[in-house]
Amino acid sequence: MRIDELETPVPVVDIDRLEANISRLQAYLDEHKIANRPHIKTHKISAIARLHMEAGAVGITCQKVSEAQVMAEAGFNDIFIPYNIIGESKLKRLTTLASRVRVSVTADSAFTIRGLSNAAQQADLTLTVLVECDTGGHRCGAESPQAAAELARLIGSLPNLRFGGLMTYPSSEHLDDFVRQTRSLLKDDGLQIERVSGGGTPGMWQAHTHAELTEHRAGIYVYGDRLSIRSGAMTLNTCALKVFTTIVSRPTSERGILDAGSKTLSSDLHNLDGYGYICEYPEAKLYLLAEEHGYVDFSACARKPEIGERISIIPNHCCMVSSLFDEVVGGRGAQVEVTWQVTARGTVR
Amino acid sequence: MRIDELETPVPVVDIDRLEANISRLQAYLDEHKIANRPHIKTHKISAIARLHMEAGAVGITCQKVSEAQVMAEAGFNDIFIPYNIIGESKLKRLTTLASRVRVSVTADSAFTIRGLSNAAQQADLTLTVLVECDTGGHRCGAESPQAAAELARLIGSLPNLRFGGLMTYPSSEHLDDFVRQTRSLLKDDGLQIERVSGGGTPGMWQAHTHAELTEHRAGIYVYGDRLSIRSGAMTLNTCALKVFTTIVSRPTSERGILDAGSKTLSSDLHNLDGYGYICEYPEAKLYLLAEEHGYVDFSACARKPEIGERISIIPNHCCMVSSLFDEVVGGRGAQVEVTWQVTARGTVR
Repeated sequence: MRIDELETPVPVVDIDRLEANISRLQAYLDEHKIANRPHIKTHKISAIARLHMEAGAVGITCQKVSEAQVMAEAGFNDIFIPYNIIGESKLKRLTTLASRVRVSVTADSAFTIRGLSNAAQQADLTLTVLVECDTGGHRCGAESPQAAAELARLIGSLPNLRFGGLMTYPSSEHLDDFVRQTRSLLKDDGLQIERVSGGGTPGMWQAHTHAELTEHRAGIYVYGDRLSIRSGAMTLNTCALKVFTTIVSRPTSERGILDAGSKTLSSDLHNLDGYGYICEYPEAKLYLLAEEHGYVDFSACARKPEIGERISIIPNHCCMVSSLFDEVVGGRGAQVEVTWQVTARGTVR
Repeated sequence: MRIDELETPVPVVDIDRLEANISRLQAYLDEHKIANRPHIKTHKISAIARLHMEAGAVGITCQKVSEAQVMAEAGFNDIFIPYNIIGESKLKRLTTLASRVRVSVTADSAFTIRGLSNAAQQADLTLTVLVECDTGGHRCGAESPQAAAELARLIGSLPNLRFGGLMTYPSSEHLDDFVRQTRSLLKDDGLQIERVSGGGTPGMWQAHTHAELTEHRAGIYVYGDRLSIRSGAMTLNTCALKVFTTIVSRPTSERGILDAGSKTLSSDLHNLDGYGYICEYPEAKLYLLAEEHGYVDFSACARKPEIGERISIIPNHCCMVSSLFDEVVGGRGAQVEVTWQVTARGTVR
């Protein structure tokens, strides 16, 4: 089947670009001797996770236990979950997973660490725990090397836990200092910082500038989107995911309505101008989304589209698209090659 | 099971409130002799659609053919799809559906109308088509009574189509004038405006002020959200859907991180202040979402939460939550009563 025969709206991945994106980052990280541990939350597709591993990734990253369960089921056996896992039944799922495959997790509080130790004791296994550090992202993470060292010592002191190193997101210019100060504070504790795990697609080509970094987690890089174009990490020509849509209405000479809204593209804006880049009409502005309607202002375009015309969109944030669709199409050139099930979709627990 | 034993994040519907919301709107529309045709895109759950019908709805509204297919499969036999349906395979699905259940659709262009006529001829059936009118929403729709009348005449003149009336979204103060002018233009054409279908939860209690309105489509009213509170149509005490989450990190004295991000709550903002209302901490601000993290500023709260504490959120826009979850829990008081499959989730085609 040809891509232009697919019903819209439909997310389509250019497999040539996908493969090139995977190879390019792997080659760069290999060159700089940084382990590649891609984040599968972007695609949530086990077949694409397999491409990471075949290219040379050391393992994968998942954001939730349920996401990791799906990937373990699909045969992946080295999974990092950089998240504070809290609550009895979630911890039970984590230890069940850790009894089958190699799992590491993170923590940024004594509360999380004690919960992990209790669960690991009950399951009679050892969990590897990295300390999450805030090096400028202001999300989770120990706020200082002192706080990080204290958490590392707690991990080292509690039963059935193993201190695995430090994690941050995104990798920042403060990463090296933070790691060195923490190491210095731990020098008398017999605790080694084995892994220093950083992340992010925007800064992926600067991973080598962080001397202390031992592994990198990137997610978006497989597909690309307007966020990764804005950051300079990717270009229009390396973006692999497009959402194909149809113009269903042209109520005025300037306005066009697409059959793709927030239930297709998500409302992620991130201070970008509009809700997506329209490849065929770069001057157009996708200025508003209803659930199943996209509002486009074509006033700046010399030629304006007709009703029924198909147009393709590079979304603002590709990771959200995976959560909205059960299937993503893979194509080469104009042809459909494969339909992937988004196997880990809906796994937010 | 108790609601507070459920793993988070999890969307939970208060069934008492849900039932009251359904009864209240039905009673109001009954009183004013306006047909109730609720929009199931909000919940996408056939069991809840059944509650609409049991309360007295004349039929249901779906936004996409695939959504209508799921509902027809579940036994609903009067379905309105207020959308321009375009493209051969989609039209084929529409006529297959129309051969089984009573279906009406809308159009706002000759292109859409001709496609519907062709498809109806091929399927050897008659499709009821309403003309979509822009009465101020500036989305789809004929821009003037003259344009609407012209489309009505085209529907009346083409094989296998039946003119079904006028549709607009949302119902506006211009609705009556638009309808009357269009009726006047059609007086010599033998075309009756049988249905005048308006919609929207924000203006639902004003439906009776539109003298020409014959039916109303509301979606959000079953669950409620911050949008419907802002509009004055609902209150904190009538909102039935909450997303239960857990505080997973307290990196600073003021910041808390939830296990619910844009893959749980969506990024819908609609000029609201923050990404959701935190019931237990009304002064807190949910100021940013990552995919699986919600960033909360608790600085305005006298008491601040501990890690591990559960909090519940009224989302900005409840319709998006249905598209992100496979299941929604229904509870009464503190107890879980039912788990509903979101049967029409992912149906954007």
